[in-house]
Amino acid sequence: MRRDEQVGATREALLTAAERLFAERGVYAVGNRQISEAAGQGNNTAVGYHFGTKADLIRAIARKHAEQIERIRERMMNDIAGSTDPRDWVSCLVRPFTEHLESLGSPTWYARFAAQVMADPTLNEIMVDEALTAAPILRSFRDGLTRCLPGLPAEIRHERAGMARHLVVQTCVERERALAEGTPTLQPTWDDLATGLIDAIAGLWQAPVTQRP
Amino acid sequence: MRRDEQVGATREALLTAAERLFAERGVYAVGNRQISEAAGQGNNTAVGYHFGTKADLIRAIARKHAEQIERIRERMMNDIAGSTDPRDWVSCLVRPFTEHLESLGSPTWYARFAAQVMADPTLNEIMVDEALTAAPILRSFRDGLTRCLPGLPAEIRHERAGMARHLVVQTCVERERALAEGTPTLQPTWDDLATGLIDAIAGLWQAPVTQRP
Repeated sequence: MRRDEQVGATREALLTAAERLFAERGVYAVGNRQISEAAGQGNNTAVGYHFGTKADLIRAIARKHAEQIERIRERMMNDIAGSTDPRDWVSCLVRPFTEHLESLGSPTWYARFAAQVMADPTLNEIMVDEALTAAPILRSFRDGLTRCLPGLPAEIRHERAGMARHLVVQTCVERERALAEGTPTLQPTWDDLATGLIDAIAGLWQAPVTQRP
Repeated sequence: MRRDEQVGATREALLTAAERLFAERGVYAVGNRQISEAAGQGNNTAVGYHFGTKADLIRAIARKHAEQIERIRERMMNDIAGSTDPRDWVSCLVRPFTEHLESLGSPTWYARFAAQVMADPTLNEIMVDEALTAAPILRSFRDGLTRCLPGLPAEIRHERAGMARHLVVQTCVERERALAEGTPTLQPTWDDLATGLIDAIAGLWQAPVTQRP
């Protein structure tokens, strides 16, 4: 194996080991030494050497998945360009995530990793940064949804976007964990899970708004 | 202070310290020794002496809050007995949680504690056990909601109930964390947050169901 191929293989082994350990034991409970060991690296400083800080490692994991997810989203958004059916736009929110998870085979760790990173105010900025590399896609997503729901005040749209994000991630976390642990899943397939989420989020997004004091 | 009062004060100090440390650093990252220290106990085995295992301690925290939350829920359900408006029932899902958090002052740690415990398959059983002490209330809640949404297949009701639970907890976690860290909150008050959640969950629950293959 050439030197650069070997470096690439080591980086990939570290990314995979880190993602699995973060998902199973928690981002804060796992140190760089454990990750190096789990990746079969004799050298305990391998994470530091290849990635830098823990935050840099988390960023590398997030980027790897974000690139693939945003590629799916771009394709789906081209397919529905100009649609004014909210369900079409909600699909572009849900299916890139579920299709990506399905493509990874089983078990996966990314949903549990993403849930933790989203829940942490510091780490969440990393996810936002990575998503910003896909800013044009996200902007045209927001514009499309706004055209479908013209009467919704901006702050309610913002509030419901946050709720939708939580729903996608938490529902996928539940299925991912059940698959990893061999316990029964609520839906037979990722596709069924996506359909249920799209129905629910479309309902949530179009719900009447109670005036607040 | 009498001996039994002193024991009660020590237990309360341990419960509060544990809840805060679990919320801020993670249930798995925090050990019994750290909790004893944070509660000002010279004896590092205080958690073991007063509660037993970590799972027993988690159960005691969950029970303390569940009792207060279920008391609020019982009162609210008496007020809406016989209603066939889904919003009334969704209120009974949302407001006991938000009113309880509001009653605790600021900052709180319970939403972040509950989110972690719900996300863990082993610990989640503790929460379910504790909720079962309130089984008659939960049963009449489910019956009420079923009467409002008679056409909804049982498996979709089950799926959406899970989504609603995630939405309540995650939305409260976000506000709780912002209040604890002094960052801007999305809604000005817990009451506004509850109104937004009730609108969204009522929409989610009444959304049309797409037939799955």
